[in-house]
Amino acid sequence: VSDFGRMTLPYGVISLPRDSHRHVAVAVDEQAVVLSALAEQRGGLSSALVDALSAPTLNPLMGIGPAAWIELRRWLLDELADGIPDDVPSEPLASVAMHLPFEVADYVDFYSSQQHAENVGRIFRPDSEPLTPNWKHLPIGYHGRAGTVVASGTDVRRPTGQRLVDGAPVVGPSLRLDIECEVGFVVGVGSSLGRPVSVDTVDEHVFGVVLLNDWSARDLQAFEYVPLGPFLGKSFATSISAWVVPLEALREARVAPPEQDPVPADYLHAEQPWGLDLALEVEWNGTVVSRPPFASLYWTPAQQLAHMTSNGATCRTGDLYGSGTVSGAEPDQRGSFLELSWSGQEPVQLDDGSTRSFLEDGDEVVLRGTAPGPDGSRIVLGEVRGTILAVAAEP
Amino acid sequence: VSDFGRMTLPYGVISLPRDSHRHVAVAVDEQAVVLSALAEQRGGLSSALVDALSAPTLNPLMGIGPAAWIELRRWLLDELADGIPDDVPSEPLASVAMHLPFEVADYVDFYSSQQHAENVGRIFRPDSEPLTPNWKHLPIGYHGRAGTVVASGTDVRRPTGQRLVDGAPVVGPSLRLDIECEVGFVVGVGSSLGRPVSVDTVDEHVFGVVLLNDWSARDLQAFEYVPLGPFLGKSFATSISAWVVPLEALREARVAPPEQDPVPADYLHAEQPWGLDLALEVEWNGTVVSRPPFASLYWTPAQQLAHMTSNGATCRTGDLYGSGTVSGAEPDQRGSFLELSWSGQEPVQLDDGSTRSFLEDGDEVVLRGTAPGPDGSRIVLGEVRGTILAVAAEP
Repeated sequence: VSDFGRMTLPYGVISLPRDSHRHVAVAVDEQAVVLSALAEQRGGLSSALVDALSAPTLNPLMGIGPAAWIELRRWLLDELADGIPDDVPSEPLASVAMHLPFEVADYVDFYSSQQHAENVGRIFRPDSEPLTPNWKHLPIGYHGRAGTVVASGTDVRRPTGQRLVDGAPVVGPSLRLDIECEVGFVVGVGSSLGRPVSVDTVDEHVFGVVLLNDWSARDLQAFEYVPLGPFLGKSFATSISAWVVPLEALREARVAPPEQDPVPADYLHAEQPWGLDLALEVEWNGTVVSRPPFASLYWTPAQQLAHMTSNGATCRTGDLYGSGTVSGAEPDQRGSFLELSWSGQEPVQLDDGSTRSFLEDGDEVVLRGTAPGPDGSRIVLGEVRGTILAVAAEP
Repeated sequence: VSDFGRMTLPYGVISLPRDSHRHVAVAVDEQAVVLSALAEQRGGLSSALVDALSAPTLNPLMGIGPAAWIELRRWLLDELADGIPDDVPSEPLASVAMHLPFEVADYVDFYSSQQHAENVGRIFRPDSEPLTPNWKHLPIGYHGRAGTVVASGTDVRRPTGQRLVDGAPVVGPSLRLDIECEVGFVVGVGSSLGRPVSVDTVDEHVFGVVLLNDWSARDLQAFEYVPLGPFLGKSFATSISAWVVPLEALREARVAPPEQDPVPADYLHAEQPWGLDLALEVEWNGTVVSRPPFASLYWTPAQQLAHMTSNGATCRTGDLYGSGTVSGAEPDQRGSFLELSWSGQEPVQLDDGSTRSFLEDGDEVVLRGTAPGPDGSRIVLGEVRGTILAVAAEP
């Protein structure tokens, strides 16, 4: 269980031990507070916000727009500046049930870490240039399955599918089950058909940030993905943190992104480009095996959303887009086990003395992240935790 | 406007001229009947069905399950056997407003016509085998954008994006704007995580059938699609018919699918495989330019849904999956303009004396389809109509 501190104030959807209803909540230190109850007790919020906070998902709050998001965050920073007052009911995070915090509309996954793309290119396409010719001209992305996005803590069953054995496809459990350590961006305010989101106004649309584990069955993916991209190798599950950190909480974490050469097209050129200085961490059965640096991402979250809508496509409340696997330049900064074990050639050593290349049944992976906050504080991203279950027995 | 006849009885969501509410309706001949009103007037339906019919989308009806679907269809066949009785209010189809008939959950597009895949392979990858090595082992598919699925009659704005000119990317309007003539399958009853849908029980999940136009910007697609598949080249719009034909109405249209060699994996092997004998038609500015035969599809709708869930992924009420472009063996059976004009080398002659390779601003495309019904009747699929708008002026 995380200690979110006083400055993160992430939003989630919880059930309390004594009832099955779902409530929008905020986390403070290691406690959860139901927001509709707090709003009623303290007063001072606009009625539109009070309505949104009484929903069983974050979607109404996400759709209400940036002015109200900021109103709520300021109110919370004020009400909870010294922690949770004695007269405000709260529950320890360890004792509440967490739910998928919002209904996912469309889910898009990008591929924006140059190190990751080069590593995967070298492993999957050793005879070609590691980066495809389009890579530095646009943030490559594809649509994933929204219906299998699950909250942190949901077990992940090993998928079955077709993989090549001696050049012929064989059906069976994936033997190269992997993770991808990513950051997910959650769209609050949608856009209109035919009206692209400007790269300079992305903050008016993005509500918040989650950590995201894009579980990947590399052997299924390798057989299926030409020519139309990943499908079943990814669609069995994508885990996100149950707590959504408001984008506003990451103001202090904004940093200049890497220089882009060639200079991208005008619609990708921001007046004030920003990346995010998020320190990520991948834990495998209790051993931290990687610390991917999010600030190294080549394409920024703003460029991703601008690109996604540049053809006139809408975005909607509940859209989720993943950064793509975050891999840094160092071997211990790689964001997938495919890269960490270099496709199984260099197994990873865990603290219990075992070695791993890909996931075994019962393995648990936790992704964590922090960011600099105001006045030397730390902003804590919601963790994503998942355990691998063995393939289902035949029915 | 279609004449659906007496045996099709497709479902849609309409607004009447005198109010803005959305109603679930059935079409008979060239008239629409509001189902909640009919149910109230005539009685005899289960209360769960009556509730579902009062919703503003088809989703509750879709989710209610096959027994109730059959109950409703039999009741309608009985009540409307001689057309619409004089005492039942109805509206001409020409005077009602049609809406997107259901909320789309996930949208998946397959690639299951061998002729289409071979044609595209020859055009896009002339130096390789036209079919990729996986093509005959599994129905290749990818996720598309659910949020930009629109109802027939919605105008489609020409997208802007990056395309290659003399080897370098240039941003501008797509110059190779295309259609794909497809059939879409609408999931009514979802499945559970980790429990694949059997290829033999797909009828218990699929509610009905729409025609689908997967608008495609070939020049944007060609630059972006390696290695993760189509993205902005497809995501600006996908049009579906506003009327959904119940799968049950296509019982007589079931035919044996083409023989599959090699024999596919067990999970794709149906006890009684079926394709659908749908006669499709592509009309371009009033000229019928193609008649794709759906029965020629290599992979069946049942194999597609079984494959989509074979890794344990759920399907949900509102999932939509497209067959992939339907192309027959003859040149005048090709389901895209890319193929009909062979990438622009053989322009298509229209009845007005003009020629076309790809879509021009103001062009209108209509997809239509019919199927054999009981006793020599014809089942009529809902048409999909769309007109191309010029790129948006700069804001």
